[in-house]
Amino acid sequence: MSEGLDGVIVGDSTTSLVNGVEGKLIYSGYHIEDLAVNALFEEVAFLLWNNRLPNQAELDELVQHIANEAVLPEGVINLMKALPKDAHPMAVLRTAVSALAHFDADSESNYITDKDKSVAHRLAIRLTGQITTATAAWERIRNGQEPLAPRADLNLSQNFVYMLTGTEPDETASKAINVYLVLLAEHGMNASTFTSRVVTGTIADMHSAITAAIAALKGFAHGGANSEAMYQFLEIGEPDNVEHWFNSYIKTHEKRVMGIGHRIYKALDPRASILKEHARALSESSGNTKWFEIAERLEHAALADEYFIERKLYPNVDYYSAIVLYTLNIPVDSFTPLFAMARIAGWTAHVIEQMGGRLIRPEVNYVGAMDLDWLPMDAR
Amino acid sequence: MSEGLDGVIVGDSTTSLVNGVEGKLIYSGYHIEDLAVNALFEEVAFLLWNNRLPNQAELDELVQHIANEAVLPEGVINLMKALPKDAHPMAVLRTAVSALAHFDADSESNYITDKDKSVAHRLAIRLTGQITTATAAWERIRNGQEPLAPRADLNLSQNFVYMLTGTEPDETASKAINVYLVLLAEHGMNASTFTSRVVTGTIADMHSAITAAIAALKGFAHGGANSEAMYQFLEIGEPDNVEHWFNSYIKTHEKRVMGIGHRIYKALDPRASILKEHARALSESSGNTKWFEIAERLEHAALADEYFIERKLYPNVDYYSAIVLYTLNIPVDSFTPLFAMARIAGWTAHVIEQMGGRLIRPEVNYVGAMDLDWLPMDAR
Repeated sequence: MSEGLDGVIVGDSTTSLVNGVEGKLIYSGYHIEDLAVNALFEEVAFLLWNNRLPNQAELDELVQHIANEAVLPEGVINLMKALPKDAHPMAVLRTAVSALAHFDADSESNYITDKDKSVAHRLAIRLTGQITTATAAWERIRNGQEPLAPRADLNLSQNFVYMLTGTEPDETASKAINVYLVLLAEHGMNASTFTSRVVTGTIADMHSAITAAIAALKGFAHGGANSEAMYQFLEIGEPDNVEHWFNSYIKTHEKRVMGIGHRIYKALDPRASILKEHARALSESSGNTKWFEIAERLEHAALADEYFIERKLYPNVDYYSAIVLYTLNIPVDSFTPLFAMARIAGWTAHVIEQMGGRLIRPEVNYVGAMDLDWLPMDAR
Repeated sequence: MSEGLDGVIVGDSTTSLVNGVEGKLIYSGYHIEDLAVNALFEEVAFLLWNNRLPNQAELDELVQHIANEAVLPEGVINLMKALPKDAHPMAVLRTAVSALAHFDADSESNYITDKDKSVAHRLAIRLTGQITTATAAWERIRNGQEPLAPRADLNLSQNFVYMLTGTEPDETASKAINVYLVLLAEHGMNASTFTSRVVTGTIADMHSAITAAIAALKGFAHGGANSEAMYQFLEIGEPDNVEHWFNSYIKTHEKRVMGIGHRIYKALDPRASILKEHARALSESSGNTKWFEIAERLEHAALADEYFIERKLYPNVDYYSAIVLYTLNIPVDSFTPLFAMARIAGWTAHVIEQMGGRLIRPEVNYVGAMDLDWLPMDAR
């Protein structure tokens, strides 16, 4: 029995290698450290979908293609406008992506009708654009502003900043978003990616697979952890409160440190190291280093603690990404939709890989009552 | 490596035993044959949620409770009315269930906030009612009719027939729907149930888990197979065409027989035997036995064929349920939402079991390129 399927290998993939012992992450051959410095998010999406880097013409075409396809149908915008303003942004994204299917002529495509997977590739491009637009749109809608359509002259990160703020996108912010998206684009058989593959295994459509992946990412033990990490920093409030907070809640096991520890990494998550330096630089240039200081002091407290040392618990990708996103003025409850904006590249790559694969259907160990005689109502 | 997780045990459960070798199915101790004859669908839901049969007062209370909670918020009805009328009923159900979250004060509940699982039990009851109402509502909306609210004096199957037709529910139809729902309510770790558990494992909410389960059920290799089975009978058209169709498409492996074969059953699926007799009786009383005859002749052709005999391929639950639902005038593309109306009982029982359990996160075998040097743009 394997309750969490720990270490169970469910198939081959050319998308990414996650080596949790060495703290190593590779997307289709390339090290995450190189990608973080050099690659546009769209370049990474191309890499994951095609297993090679694009040349300039191919990259330009994809950037343009994603920007064009990122437009939301009016029906989906109207649907989002009609939702209660206090709806959770991740729940709204789940509904919006599910609803996109109804306005998409390709939506009922699946492996039976799309054996060469060309429709799936088209949907991957479209959904990559639309999830960004939907995330920005909900932020404006819930604040009573009109959502903005993507601009054809901007790349995805720039478009996100533009559609969020309505102003010419700040280059520092766009580049920080780009690095964040590159780092979060893909990560092996995580729970949301696995969900998208289980759904695809039933010969369902791409919108079904991605809607389900968003549902899984929403959980606190997965993508939801970036918001939870920030709520924890906000609760601590001041750098000088860290040690007292740690002793009061963590030493006593009343709370867990959100953003520390990972199923796979027993070394430092390489994404966390990169994000930490971005969080530091962004905090310094913004003139407010408080949240970074809290995070770093809490990291030090944890890394000096026996409980964390024994279990090899290090900051994961959510920990410092919370500081990055907060410094970029992303609302805390919208952190997880930004995770989805990145991971859509990986999800769709995995869906395309899974298409035509075997139905994923494990078994369960029945431990209930056996062979009971039927109990008529008057005997109960 | 286990590509389909065949035979991999992911945990303990008290919900159901599926013995595919003996063709035996037990829900929390009781044989499916007894439940099909004796139980109301709500009685089965109670059994799955509580691991015991309700007494009369408990059953009456649950029937009433589900009917009361089955009302759809106006916001969800308006959202459904605004969707394109040609949207796939399963895709609409996926969107509707996701959207129900935005109008439900309990929607953001998860294991962290609901340790005694009382909110989850409440949501299980509510969603069981609402999925039935949404299924009936979409049928009316897409035909330009006003959706109907559930009546407090009817049980779930009666309410479904009432909300679909707008007339006093026919008892034969209601009872047939009830048997169908009882038979389809639960079935071990099938792909949609597994999906709901993977999502719950991330500490996500019930609406996320159920939305994802609907996404998985939609696939042709899972719940979508009941519609596909009927499309196949319609394509055959006449009983006398069966053998020619079988020789032309099945013998040549150009097509598969939809509704025959199952991952787990290597004996006759006990649900299929029961549904076959219901299909026969309903067809006879309706005065049109053509579709039943086609199904039975196709079954005989398959069971006499070496390919099917060798692989132990028998009609599964979708095969004769297609005839039952067609005879009850359910539109073919709405067969799968009816499967969801049943399986919501099992899904929610599994979600409640999974709450507080381990994150389900397998691994993948990376077979892509390794440790490539970064390739500057002008070198590509």
